[in-house]
Amino acid sequence: MSEEPTLAEVSEEEILGRIFPHFRPTGAELLGPGDDAAVLAAASGSVVVTTDAMVRGRDWLDEWSTPEDVAAKSLTQNLADIAAMGAVPTAVVVALVADPATPVAWLERYAAELGSRCARLGVSVAGGDLSSAPAGTVMLSITALGDLAGREPLTRAGARVGDVLAVCGPLGRSGAGLALLSDGVVEADHPAAAAALAHHRRPDAPLAAGPQAVSAGAHALMDISDGLLRDAARIGRASGVAIDLDSGLLAEDIAALVPAVGTDRARECVLAGGEEHSLLAAYPSERGLPEGWRPVGAIVAGPAGQVAADGEATTPRGWDHFAG
Amino acid sequence: MSEEPTLAEVSEEEILGRIFPHFRPTGAELLGPGDDAAVLAAASGSVVVTTDAMVRGRDWLDEWSTPEDVAAKSLTQNLADIAAMGAVPTAVVVALVADPATPVAWLERYAAELGSRCARLGVSVAGGDLSSAPAGTVMLSITALGDLAGREPLTRAGARVGDVLAVCGPLGRSGAGLALLSDGVVEADHPAAAAALAHHRRPDAPLAAGPQAVSAGAHALMDISDGLLRDAARIGRASGVAIDLDSGLLAEDIAALVPAVGTDRARECVLAGGEEHSLLAAYPSERGLPEGWRPVGAIVAGPAGQVAADGEATTPRGWDHFAG
Repeated sequence: MSEEPTLAEVSEEEILGRIFPHFRPTGAELLGPGDDAAVLAAASGSVVVTTDAMVRGRDWLDEWSTPEDVAAKSLTQNLADIAAMGAVPTAVVVALVADPATPVAWLERYAAELGSRCARLGVSVAGGDLSSAPAGTVMLSITALGDLAGREPLTRAGARVGDVLAVCGPLGRSGAGLALLSDGVVEADHPAAAAALAHHRRPDAPLAAGPQAVSAGAHALMDISDGLLRDAARIGRASGVAIDLDSGLLAEDIAALVPAVGTDRARECVLAGGEEHSLLAAYPSERGLPEGWRPVGAIVAGPAGQVAADGEATTPRGWDHFAG
Repeated sequence: MSEEPTLAEVSEEEILGRIFPHFRPTGAELLGPGDDAAVLAAASGSVVVTTDAMVRGRDWLDEWSTPEDVAAKSLTQNLADIAAMGAVPTAVVVALVADPATPVAWLERYAAELGSRCARLGVSVAGGDLSSAPAGTVMLSITALGDLAGREPLTRAGARVGDVLAVCGPLGRSGAGLALLSDGVVEADHPAAAAALAHHRRPDAPLAAGPQAVSAGAHALMDISDGLLRDAARIGRASGVAIDLDSGLLAEDIAALVPAVGTDRARECVLAGGEEHSLLAAYPSERGLPEGWRPVGAIVAGPAGQVAADGEATTPRGWDHFAG
């Protein structure tokens, strides 16, 4: 018998009483959570908004991921989308739909990690919703808001022939972590494998690199959610250009993963691994790349969205959420 | 064999291609959906935000509710929260987490209704997320944004002793509809029963009454999500006052539901029926109520959050999402 109370065993107000203290105001709240809605400052006259959901069993497994891991992952995937517009994240709202048999402690640990990460980032947890789900289902949906501070949003659509394609953050690490977990490796001694497991479970995104890319004059920007090939193709399609990856420039990324997952899978992870949340941008070639960014290829003339490696066509790979 | 393709049988891009055309720009989008995030105008320097999720089997049943009904309900419950701050809704983002066996047509009908309602209201559908869920699960999470046009938000916390407690919109109608459906009555000839079924399945909220309440000098405002008694108690607790409902003023609301569900349940529905999304406000007594509002009681001195009827204490009732 578990001594952990479940959501079904305590009142909603008691649950909220255990969650709310983890969310600290950032100063951006003109009115914090607790009323029908929150009110946030949007001083520069616009607001950036994105939403992303996670489902237990599909986006995480309790055997592999702690509540803290799930908090990190659900937060990062949303904040990376805000950064990918060149904006600074300001607030999130969270909807949790959970099996009433979920331990209250799971939710409290989730909230504590979410709250402490948001506090560190100056992001307000501005509201939430708590609903019960069918047995076995736990689902988290986060909406993130961001601020451009008067800048124009940086979309996927501005890449120009001759631009440098560049990355800020690791490549393939989350995919390698997932491959290890799928093989039953939940802990690893080798630093490459340990880093891969950690990044898959608890990803971080280079959030500051979003506004940095705007300041540095990038022409296009996105975050890598579905793998380098597939996301580079999206920049290509949106911009009406083709992409040529440089295998030499990716060799180091691949080599870094080889001790964790072997050569073939390292290559697969770097090219097609999803949930990485590194940033991908097209920079004008005449300027140097800002600190933290490295080149991985070039924007070239060709069919919109075509991705080649060293001039040879590749097949874009990634995640199609409903494919078998 | 069904001829309806399911989400699992078509690509994500094909699904999005069938959904996006239903969402028309409103002019508030500085950048519409399709990139990592959308960018919306927030000209008055603040943004109101709220989130609310719905789960099949708990918040709706496919036997009772069409996709259009679910769209109306999921939208209204969020927009009512925006109106309940005195704000005008400007945009929504939608996360759908669905069993891959869900027919694409269900989703398309949902999107068409959501899109046409939003277009009528000048609300932008600014983004979304589509994820697969465990078998049997369909979950919708909407986040709504709103604009105060420079007004202060109208919270639950400003009611003063001597104020009139007033309602805009029906009372108990959604609860009566739910009671009928629970009895197996899915269609009804009597106008009261038909109206109750319609309001439960496809609720509307008096959205314009939110900003109207601000203009008319209301002291406190919220929407009725969990029943009059329970929500009035919330205004009482937030404002540090007690509430005295006037049974005479509620007699007409009750009488209107008697032909649908009988006397006892009509009273129960008016006092405790949830998901109504009418607005509840405290108005200074010296001014008349604005058009569309009617008095239902008074703000009185007493223990914060206590709700009486004709001076006699009641037990607040409503929905606690995780209670058995």
